[in-house]
Amino acid sequence: MSTVKLIQDAEADPRVKAVLDDIRATRKSDFINNFWLYLAFDPQLLEETWQGVKSVMAVPSALDPLTKELIYIAVSVTNSCRYCVHSHTAAARAKGMTDEMYADLLRVIATAGRTNQLLNAMQVPVDPVFDLE
Amino acid sequence: MSTVKLIQDAEADPRVKAVLDDIRATRKSDFINNFWLYLAFDPQLLEETWQGVKSVMAVPSALDPLTKELIYIAVSVTNSCRYCVHSHTAAARAKGMTDEMYADLLRVIATAGRTNQLLNAMQVPVDPVFDLE
Amino acid sequence: MSTVKLIQDAEADPRVKAVLDDIRATRKSDFINNFWLYLAFDPQLLEETWQGVKSVMAVPSALDPLTKELIYIAVSVTNSCRYCVHSHTAAARAKGMTDEMYADLLRVIATAGRTNQLLNAMQVPVDPVFDLE
Amino acid sequence: MSTVKLIQDAEADPRVKAVLDDIRATRKSDFINNFWLYLAFDPQLLEETWQGVKSVMAVPSALDPLTKELIYIAVSVTNSCRYCVHSHTAAARAKGMTDEMYADLLRVIATAGRTNQLLNAMQVPVDPVFDLE
Amino acid sequence: MSTVKLIQDAEADPRVKAVLDDIRATRKSDFINNFWLYLAFDPQLLEETWQGVKSVMAVPSALDPLTKELIYIAVSVTNSCRYCVHSHTAAARAKGMTDEMYADLLRVIATAGRTNQLLNAMQVPVDPVFDLE
Amino acid sequence: MSTVKLIQDAEADPRVKAVLDDIRATRKSDFINNFWLYLAFDPQLLEETWQGVKSVMAVPSALDPLTKELIYIAVSVTNSCRYCVHSHTAAARAKGMTDEMYADLLRVIATAGRTNQLLNAMQVPVDPVFDLE
Repeated sequence: MSTVKLIQDAEADPRVKAVLDDIRATRKSDFINNFWLYLAFDPQLLEETWQGVKSVMAVPSALDPLTKELIYIAVSVTNSCRYCVHSHTAAARAKGMTDEMYADLLRVIATAGRTNQLLNAMQVPVDPVFDLE
Repeated sequence: MSTVKLIQDAEADPRVKAVLDDIRATRKSDFINNFWLYLAFDPQLLEETWQGVKSVMAVPSALDPLTKELIYIAVSVTNSCRYCVHSHTAAARAKGMTDEMYADLLRVIATAGRTNQLLNAMQVPVDPVFDLE
Repeated sequence: MSTVKLIQDAEADPRVKAVLDDIRATRKSDFINNFWLYLAFDPQLLEETWQGVKSVMAVPSALDPLTKELIYIAVSVTNSCRYCVHSHTAAARAKGMTDEMYADLLRVIATAGRTNQLLNAMQVPVDPVFDLE
Repeated sequence: MSTVKLIQDAEADPRVKAVLDDIRATRKSDFINNFWLYLAFDPQLLEETWQGVKSVMAVPSALDPLTKELIYIAVSVTNSCRYCVHSHTAAARAKGMTDEMYADLLRVIATAGRTNQLLNAMQVPVDPVFDLE
Repeated sequence: MSTVKLIQDAEADPRVKAVLDDIRATRKSDFINNFWLYLAFDPQLLEETWQGVKSVMAVPSALDPLTKELIYIAVSVTNSCRYCVHSHTAAARAKGMTDEMYADLLRVIATAGRTNQLLNAMQVPVDPVFDLE
Repeated sequence: MSTVKLIQDAEADPRVKAVLDDIRATRKSDFINNFWLYLAFDPQLLEETWQGVKSVMAVPSALDPLTKELIYIAVSVTNSCRYCVHSHTAAARAKGMTDEMYADLLRVIATAGRTNQLLNAMQVPVDPVFDLE
């Protein structure tokens, strides 16, 4: 059940086909997950979103690919985004996340959830030493 | 401005002193940030919280210390916890986070914030292939 | 699966019947969505909630009805309220939201989700010029 | 107090200068708010973020510019992003938001905040009629 | 620094004066906190909001006044609403919350923050026994 | 559908068995809900989490057991944690929450959701009188 209709023949639109082909090529896989198929209802939104995700997640950068997936999961969990949690946990496993690493990730996001509540409650003043300026 | 009073002579309580001493020993530094000083209004809460944070963040585990700080920042940003963002960004820098890594972290948490909104809006069905069972 | 039982014969209670009749009259439709049917477990809560929603969403005001639905969707997406996202997206379509407008809404809420993360991370000082006082 | 240092001579970097010049030209104003000045610590992140915001907020699209600002405020309030709330409320006023419209916006985001809580608590099943598929 | 201007002579408007008088009478105190003074920029919004808060928080009901304040704090902390956290923590203390009760409240909201993260990450299926229907 | 596999023979691990036995003894019931069964994929995480929850929720303290469940629900609703909302609403009912109390809880969390939005939007300055220091 979604708020947009899945377009059956989405690749008939050359802009959609170009994006989906690039996803397949980038990931070296024929499988395309529902997010991109449903986004195809608006080819421009599909293009922009894929370009944004690709440039951050599929291009070598200062952080390694698995670390980036762990961070992505942490945000998605905190935002309670069910689809994102599932897709990025699967992606993290595909990039080498073991059960031990996953348990460690859970420990950190649970601890952060715990202390975030304490600090948002106590409204402790930020130590001046943390100021970069 | 906070919701609890900072206790001036907190270390007169031996339970508080024991925790603060352990923080100093664990971190090899005399500096103790406000979070722990304000938490001292309830020695048991201080003990439990420090034990929890220490066992996750200060003990070797599957994820390295810097990766754990990046994940901590990601959760704290998403929960809009100002104090936590400041303290863990400082901790990440102390553990080696460069400006390039920080910019990369920002890119990932911003991209996750962007696609979390899209998926929470579109309510796309989760692909069966993501199911572990 | 819900946390309250759906009352089968809810309209036997005259307070419930009065609210449901007003919903039908206000919307010029016999259909009543589950939110109101489940709220009927407490007639006073049903009354208060419907009065509050009606006075804001069903009465002419400075913002037009479709703009109000778009804002409602934006909040509901950010709060990850699945039911609210579905019901208000349907309401927005009923009030004239086209696919082009929906894609535009998605673009704005995704961009806001993206920059909210950046600002909550960077903790940039608010420009004095934004102060109204 | 922020987590990045404001670069004093940011426009010495031609990539930074190009973005800031484009902001001035797009907005027909010499004033540049802190967000962009602080983002300049990473010229690529500055470029990407500005391109993303500009393409959504400064280009004619299905929704009018003021409606887009109201939606932006709604997301920023719900994410508790203090800077974003200030900057986009100022932007909305600059684009014509009156006090009456602002009070109406507040009414809608408050009502959404209220019913989001009810639905997230009651976990009411989504009506099949809301399904687009 | 706020997004609305504080009206200096707010009580010159009889609708504003009536609400502020009722706040004073209900609370048996001459002090009126900033929330209501700033809301006075729109008398109708002030009236509606005060009526809503008063009917829930200042009227005897199934839950006692202090319990209601503790719940209010719990929501406000989780939403990262700084003003609300301060005002309702003060209200809870005025209604008898001791330091021991406050520490207990902090323990519960921190534990909930911790397990909420775990469950939002693991997406564990809800046990059928929890279903009321 | 979850992100970890349910271990069929979890109690073959003595650490897991010890925790599940303690849950049964503490609750005086043979039923164990899915959260703990799925957490068993990592015995240490299971132990730590149960110890944390037990020490806060199953031990006499300044707040009574039902009040603690109401606070737990309030946080879980605001974090949009579906599983947590179901399990803690069931726990609250088991500890004596009536329909009248539940409706009252809903009223308070809805009112908090409403005013949190107003304050996060208006950014009203915190009254100095709320400062404990």
